[in-house]
Parts: sequence; C-alpha cells; structure tokens
Amino acid sequence: MNIPLILDTENVSYIIGDDALTKSSNIFNDYKRIIIITDENVERLCLPVFKRKLPNIKIDGVITINSGEENKSISQLIYIWEKLTKFNADRDDLIINLGGGIVTDIGGMAAATFKRGLKFINFPTTLLGMVDAAIGGKTGIDFDGFKNQVGLFVNPASVIIDPIFLQTLEEIQWQSGFAEVLKYGLILDRELWQKLEGRNYNDNDINWNLVIIKAAKDKIDIVRFDTLEKGIRKNLNFGHTIGHAFESYYLKTDNPVTHGMAIAAGMICEAWISSRIFNIECTLLNTIVDMIDKNFTRFIFDENEIPVLMKLMKQDKKVRGNKQNFSLLKKPGKAIHEIEVKNEQIIQSIKYYINRQSCD
Amino acid sequence: MNIPLILDTENVSYIIGDDALTKSSNIFNDYKRIIIITDENVERLCLPVFKRKLPNIKIDGVITINSGEENKSISQLIYIWEKLTKFNADRDDLIINLGGGIVTDIGGMAAATFKRGLKFINFPTTLLGMVDAAIGGKTGIDFDGFKNQVGLFVNPASVIIDPIFLQTLEEIQWQSGFAEVLKYGLILDRELWQKLEGRNYNDNDINWNLVIIKAAKDKIDIVRFDTLEKGIRKNLNFGHTIGHAFESYYLKTDNPVTHGMAIAAGMICEAWISSRIFNIECTLLNTIVDMIDKNFTRFIFDENEIPVLMKLMKQDKKVRGNKQNFSLLKKPGKAIHEIEVKNEQIIQSIKYYINRQSCD
Repeated sequence: MNIPLILDTENVSYIIGDDALTKSSNIFNDYKRIIIITDENVERLCLPVFKRKLPNIKIDGVITINSGEENKSISQLIYIWEKLTKFNADRDDLIINLGGGIVTDIGGMAAATFKRGLKFINFPTTLLGMVDAAIGGKTGIDFDGFKNQVGLFVNPASVIIDPIFLQTLEEIQWQSGFAEVLKYGLILDRELWQKLEGRNYNDNDINWNLVIIKAAKDKIDIVRFDTLEKGIRKNLNFGHTIGHAFESYYLKTDNPVTHGMAIAAGMICEAWISSRIFNIECTLLNTIVDMIDKNFTRFIFDENEIPVLMKLMKQDKKVRGNKQNFSLLKKPGKAIHEIEVKNEQIIQSIKYYINRQSCD
Repeated sequence: MNIPLILDTENVSYIIGDDALTKSSNIFNDYKRIIIITDENVERLCLPVFKRKLPNIKIDGVITINSGEENKSISQLIYIWEKLTKFNADRDDLIINLGGGIVTDIGGMAAATFKRGLKFINFPTTLLGMVDAAIGGKTGIDFDGFKNQVGLFVNPASVIIDPIFLQTLEEIQWQSGFAEVLKYGLILDRELWQKLEGRNYNDNDINWNLVIIKAAKDKIDIVRFDTLEKGIRKNLNFGHTIGHAFESYYLKTDNPVTHGMAIAAGMICEAWISSRIFNIECTLLNTIVDMIDKNFTRFIFDENEIPVLMKLMKQDKKVRGNKQNFSLLKKPGKAIHEIEVKNEQIIQSIKYYINRQSCD
C-alpha cells in the first residue's frame, strides 16, 4: 500500500495517511481565495502545523468559532455566514474546514449554504474526524437540544487525513475516536477488530497510521455507495440510536460527554439487543462488552431517567413513523440494518448497561 | 395541449394549469403525514381553496410565518425548524409549501435542512411563484441585507401550479410576476412576447392559464438541463444583476419594492447595456423599454446613490472574482450569458434609466 493512500471516488478525492498534508498541495490550485474555518483550540494547535506543511498556500481569511459541542449551534453558523459575507466570499473561493467533527459539520453546512454552495475541503484534526465525521457528507448543527437536527448531505471536494494532527490531541479525544474505530471492527472489519482486541486506546504500540487508513477506508467504502443513507450506510448507526440519546441527554447537563463515550454506551446496549435477537453467544457478547469497558468507563445513569432517554430516541432522524429501527450485529464483523426493536427490549438493554448485568 | 399539463422530468413532476389542484390528489399517497408551511396572508386567502379542492387530504400541521420579504429571514427559518421539531417531523412526512416565492424559498430550505432533508412539494399561489420561484430548486433566505445570501439548490418532489390562486392576488403581485413573464419573452420565447406586446398586465383579455403554462414551461426547460446554474440557466439572470441591487437597496428603506419592480428596472438598464454591446437598433430597444414602462412606473432614484447600488452588486452570487458578468440580450428572444461589463457602462445604464435618456 502506498502511503499516503490516494483515493479518487466519484465525487470526492481522498488523501489518507502520513504526509497527506504535503501531498495535498495541488488541490488548492483551482480556487481564487482560501478561507479557513476552524475553532479556537485547533487554530492554536493545528493551524501552525498546516502552515508549516503547506508553506506556499496563501490563506486569505480565517474564521474561528468557539470550541466545544455546545458551539455546533445556529449562533455559530450565523457567525460564519456573517464572516463569509464580510469576506465577500464567492463560488470561486474555497473553504477549508480545519478541525474535528464539530468544525467539519458546521463548516460544511456553512459552506454548502452560503450563496447556495461554496466548495469545501475537510482537514480533520481529531481521530473521530479522521475516521468518521469528515467523511461521508453529513453536515449540520445541533438544534433545540437535538443532535444534528438541522443540516444537509453534501460532499466535500476532498478530504485530507494526516495523522500528524493527532499529536495535538488530548487523551479524551483519542478515546472518543476509538469508539468509532471499534465500531468498524464490529460491523464490517474483523481484521481491524482482531488487530485491536484486548488493546487500550493509549497503548504505545498501536500503528495509528494503519488503523486510520483502514477505518477511513471502511467508511469511504460504505458511504460512496449509499451517500443518502437509504441502505447499507445505516449499518454505521450501530450503537448510535441509544448512543445519540445518551449524548443528547448529557448535552443538556453540566457534564456533556464525548461522542465516543456515548457511542460506547450505545454499543454495549445494542450489542446486548443484538445478542437477544440474533442469538449471539454469551462469550462473544462478553468479549465485545469487555473490550468496550476496557476503553470506556460506564456512565452512572439513574434508572428513573430511562423515560427521558426514550423520549430523546423518538426524535432520532433514523426514526420513521413510530418504529424504532436499529442497526444491529448479526455476528461480530457483520451488521444488519432496519431491525425493529420493541421499547421494552430497549429499556432492558439500558438496564443491562447501567446495572452491569450478566449476559444470561 | 392537455390542461392541466402534466410533465414528469428526471427529478420533479409538474402539474400546470386549470384544475391542477384536483389532479394532484394522488401525489400525497406516499407520505405518513402532511405539514403545510405558509404565511399569514396565504393561510387566510388560499388555504381554504386548497382544502376545498382537495377535501380528502388530511393536514397534520400548519406552520405559518409572517408575510412579506422582510420575513424571508433567519428568524423565520428558525421558527419553522422549531415547529418541525415540535411536530416531531421525520423523513416519512411531506412538507407542502403553499405560498408565493418567499414561502417556497424559505419553506424549501427549511424542509431540505431539517433532519438533513424532508421531501417537499411547492404549491405556488402568486404569479411570480408560478412562473419562477417555485420552479428550479433555488431555496434560501435573505441574510445580512443581501437577497438569497444563504440557501441551497434542492428540487421539490413536485410543483403544482393552479391558476385558481391568482384570484386572491392584489394588483401589485400580478405586476410583480409579470416582469418575469416578460423576461421569458425577451430571453427565449418570442411567441410569448408577441402575445403580450403592447399589453398591460391588468388587461382583461389575457389568457393567464396559457401564459402561465408557457412561462412555467420555459423555466422548466432551462432548469432541468442546468439545475446548478453552470451554463444556460444563467440566461434567466437577465435584468437580475442590476435588478437585485435595486431590490437590496430598497429592502433597507421604509419602502421596499416588489421583486418585479426591481427586475423591471434591471431589465431596462440591462437592455440598454445589451444594445451597446450587441448593437441592437434603437427602435428595438425602445419597443422593449416602452413595454416595460407600460407596466412599471420607474423608480425615482438619486444619482448620488449609484455607488451604493454598485457596492450591492459586488455581493451578487453571480459575481466571480472581480468580474461583473451579465446575461444580456443578443437580440429579442435570445439571451447570452457571462458577458463582462465594465463598471462605467453599468453606471451609464443606471443613468439612462433614471434620467429617461433617449436611446442614442
């Protein structure tokens, strides 16, 4: 395999792996001006790296939003639109989204809706961004307390994934991205799972360059054939139906959790539901749950709050009508979507999670 | 020709002409719930007509925004998103945009961005909506004082154009839509122009059913082959570069003008520029200008304000870089796009307009 991996799909070109930044220098040629959207932390930690690796790129403007999920908001979206208006940005200009999932989500939406659509390129700087958020064209903001309530599907022109930015990450961000890496292992990539089994995300000897290439490619392979999430892309939602409800729940508290923590919790619940519906053996379920527990501390969640979680779940974009459709594991390495799950079973899975029940 | 005209294109199905409403009854079948977005005036005047003509359609929710261009705003867009959240709308539901261009523009954007995209159908109720705004997938809002600064290209599932709603229009709205009808005549439909030449929009004997079918079809023919406005669709911008600047200018005053009034002014200026660049004869130019003057009173505009107009023009989405590209008339019935026009010539054309200069 050549590194970085260069992959040109129908609509998007990808450069993934060590040295991707340097290799990306010619993608800027077609544009009149370059405007970067980033957040405060990333501007401080990653923009200098970007400039050092791409010394010949002239940056015409930088729009910096506040850091943190609470800023994936309509007010920050308006702020970006105002700045773009001030720059008099037009369709010959290029937007660079430099940051984690929050920046690529809100920046993608801002670019795609300004003057009915400027081109944009994602440069993810977090593990979660590299293996998930920056790939696949989902953009948007949280709204009215709900995650990604407003947004659109729109592909970036390119996604440039350079692990160099990982050096800037705090431990909690490594952990957050690791949940999605584990998910790819569970839903479609046994090889990746086996590479990681029994490991902790902060083990020194993980080859992140290869893990990222593998995980990013897993995601690309799925979304390129189902951008609008009508079929197979739904498999990516494993752990996310209950996980997003946890995330929305904690978003409203003083202690919001990372996406990965919420998805880790969701994966434990949904692995349990999978085991009930598809008769997965206890030992297999335990292996999955143990691996997640090894990397994520469980939430201390009050059973009385389960109805709140259930209500948040009803607002999920994946809900069609009154049915609660899940993407579940048929077996490790194989997911299956649009499985209807009864409310009672969802509630039981959450109890399984919070009470650390045994498999039987 | 069958009336109503039923036209199924690649992405959008159209029903146009008398009795279109009744004929549309089966397009609602595929959806779980029907939510109408409309404005105060339209709700009062047109919703009863909609219900009377489609008595078997169950309406599950009505979202009513304030009437008027000043409400094609981010605050009303947020209001719609909030209401959709309250309805718990999802991707099995259908949004009906019932109204003029403001409702179909903002309602289309709201639908297309809620949960990353609900399906919507436009039912235009104004002449302008029927022949222009509801067709072609341009959605959006005004922002920071600029028309359609934020939005996206997204097609409705269907557009249902029933002239029955025209009975609810005030005279000023007839006039506004008539500017676009004249534009189709000038840029591509000599037959339509000849039908209308020398007429006033409130003449009794105009066959509006046929005029609307013809004008709507002109627009459909253009946008279906160039949705993203990369080529021929740009021809539709005749009169709109200077016209939009007038519209933005008056939007900030206490006396905002209709879209049609602004475009009428823009067409006079741009017809003059066309005559200079393509050597159109004075008599032809006079015929065009006389026809517009017959239907629209000229603005009393102070020459000292021309620089403000020029600045507004620079913010136009059609501007690429520093070039001001116009869509102009090569001859009556034929437009041509991406003609670079010098600032000096633009200024002269505005002076020609405000001072009612003669052609020579």
